[in-house]
Amino acid sequence: MSFHSMWAELLPIGRSSATGGYRRYAWTGADADCRAWFREQAATRGLTYEVDRNGNQWAWLGDPTAGNAVVTGSHLDSVPDGGAFDGPLGVVSSFAALDELRDRGAEFTRPLAVVNFGDEEGARFGLACVGSRLTAGALTPEQARTLTDADGVTLPQAMEAAGHDPDAIGADPERLARIGAFVELHVEQGRALDLTGDPVGVASAIWPHGRWRFDFRGEANHAGTTRLADRRDPMLPYAETVLAARKEAQLSGAVATFGKISVEPNGVNAVPSVVRGWLDSRAPGQHTLDAVVGGIEKAAREFADHHGVDLDVVRESFTPVVEFDHALRDELVRILGTDTDLTVPVLGTGAGHDAGILASRIPTAMLFVRNPTGVSHSPAESAAEDDCVAGVRALADVLEGLACR
Amino acid sequence: MSFHSMWAELLPIGRSSATGGYRRYAWTGADADCRAWFREQAATRGLTYEVDRNGNQWAWLGDPTAGNAVVTGSHLDSVPDGGAFDGPLGVVSSFAALDELRDRGAEFTRPLAVVNFGDEEGARFGLACVGSRLTAGALTPEQARTLTDADGVTLPQAMEAAGHDPDAIGADPERLARIGAFVELHVEQGRALDLTGDPVGVASAIWPHGRWRFDFRGEANHAGTTRLADRRDPMLPYAETVLAARKEAQLSGAVATFGKISVEPNGVNAVPSVVRGWLDSRAPGQHTLDAVVGGIEKAAREFADHHGVDLDVVRESFTPVVEFDHALRDELVRILGTDTDLTVPVLGTGAGHDAGILASRIPTAMLFVRNPTGVSHSPAESAAEDDCVAGVRALADVLEGLACR
Repeated sequence: MSFHSMWAELLPIGRSSATGGYRRYAWTGADADCRAWFREQAATRGLTYEVDRNGNQWAWLGDPTAGNAVVTGSHLDSVPDGGAFDGPLGVVSSFAALDELRDRGAEFTRPLAVVNFGDEEGARFGLACVGSRLTAGALTPEQARTLTDADGVTLPQAMEAAGHDPDAIGADPERLARIGAFVELHVEQGRALDLTGDPVGVASAIWPHGRWRFDFRGEANHAGTTRLADRRDPMLPYAETVLAARKEAQLSGAVATFGKISVEPNGVNAVPSVVRGWLDSRAPGQHTLDAVVGGIEKAAREFADHHGVDLDVVRESFTPVVEFDHALRDELVRILGTDTDLTVPVLGTGAGHDAGILASRIPTAMLFVRNPTGVSHSPAESAAEDDCVAGVRALADVLEGLACR
Repeated sequence: MSFHSMWAELLPIGRSSATGGYRRYAWTGADADCRAWFREQAATRGLTYEVDRNGNQWAWLGDPTAGNAVVTGSHLDSVPDGGAFDGPLGVVSSFAALDELRDRGAEFTRPLAVVNFGDEEGARFGLACVGSRLTAGALTPEQARTLTDADGVTLPQAMEAAGHDPDAIGADPERLARIGAFVELHVEQGRALDLTGDPVGVASAIWPHGRWRFDFRGEANHAGTTRLADRRDPMLPYAETVLAARKEAQLSGAVATFGKISVEPNGVNAVPSVVRGWLDSRAPGQHTLDAVVGGIEKAAREFADHHGVDLDVVRESFTPVVEFDHALRDELVRILGTDTDLTVPVLGTGAGHDAGILASRIPTAMLFVRNPTGVSHSPAESAAEDDCVAGVRALADVLEGLACR
């Protein structure tokens, strides 16, 4: 089954006809359809199919228990109204690369597996990479069992409804011990490769990343009768902070975004009492991130003071930098460097991935495929056909280099 | 029954113990309790009690049908978590002024009535001044019947449940024809009297007032991986517009407020696709208001262009300036000017009132009582006891001057 036909089979699953975006959330019907597709791909190729205790799917070529396996794959779930490529490109390319290696007549010296990690995007239960986190022991079963979706359905209830035993979830060190290397191919979520003009790149690191909640507390008042001078309007320092965040990030090569806001009472004719804004910021290194967020917070406090508004800043989450295994990364660059058509940039990324979770447990690497617009988590997300083909060839080269010597 | 005991009886009705604010919404139980209190006040004083076709309550001294009546009053309902004074101060002061006139032994040459207009704040059905609008014919019964609360209850259903016949509602020109003058006493909703140091003022006009929706449309994107230069983030021109609105209003002696916002997808890790902000702006005159809103819109378009964001501006509502009857206003100033203790500023206001609705039909005037903090539509709203007493005396003087010559 070619890349094209695999892609065509996946395309309609979980796609909203209203937005053209994907709604493939963990343990839903669309997720089950994606999983059935994966199982079918394993069967078609005569691979050994497994679902692990955390609901991740595996398709093995060779003995799963032999050890030192080379694993590749990604995820099939999506963010709300996400694009077709984020996740599925990695899974489809993995099967296509395996097909290409068989066409090449490659002789495998290590077991090889394709994996589909469950619930990578966290769209339904609010926490990303649940499948890989559980497996790596980065999320305990007790923590996972408290996860609840917007309708009040718990993760165990959702698993059970989808036919997966929720009592089985938990760390899986034996499974990880079988794996010698994990390589995840993913569509790039920015425009770095577009700017260098390369179809494929290798990941260096996942940027450190945090979320901070800025609570600006002023005084609710009548928007028609309260003199400007008598107001303590929290919308004003919020607005100044949004602009300061952009400026701080720009000066430091970081990113900073206020994408979520909550206002009380949120009435047209009311000066707000509270404006809550959430800052998402990421930078190439910890020092830069500290400087950017520190600068934003300092500016926000000055703005708040100026308007007689109180400010609390709460760090809601934080993920330190993930450096991918240097030896494996260098090996990928060496393998891909033998193709004289290809220069392979090594680049950092601001996005989290299952590979980032596994990197603390096993040697892990990532390949990125060019995204011509950089648009991600949107129906407009795209990758050129030639670049997808280049991605499959690069992944096949990497797997051959790692598993067939 | 003294001002104090009337006030004390009203205080607990519809008060939230959680916030200390009032939740007296039209045709609810709290509203019924307020109405029962009004009826009791009429009975205690031997006044002729009526409920008109639109649910407004009247308490008459003298023949309601004689014509050329002097009417005073306000409303008893509240905004969500409103203060104790906005509305009730006018109704309580009306009864107290009537008591004072009787104590003075005043002889009435015109009929006098106290009125409680229903549903002034529009907290439940989203439209302010429903009782006075229906009576004045500024709202048709057909329009009123389409009003629906947050639970899907229509205005007719709510009226019927509260024992009022919804088929009766509509314009009431005969009732209005009986009235020679309407005077509404109201707590000031700003700090103008606090700044001039006067306990009581007379209204000149209600400022023209409008609401505009600013729809900034950019492009949803991943907050971690999208380069700043590749973003079309609508939060940035929104923030710049919030600050421009404050500046424009400040330069012109107007007010401008962004108190309501709606963001899509409103995710912490997503550059927004849409930021909708609602502008409320009011100014002493139409020309100033046009200039302020025009300036804000022009600035917003430049900000949006700069960030590659589309902007639509929609005027959602507009109320032109209401000039109170000049002869009646001058008469009030003349009457109050005979009290040598009192200087009486004449001031405009940014808030709507039943008096503003009736002003197009009958000679109408307003008295304001000082609000030391200017806080309004909030549990912190207040007026000093001495100022409330001064308000009652001023209202008694006005009613005596108008109805007892």
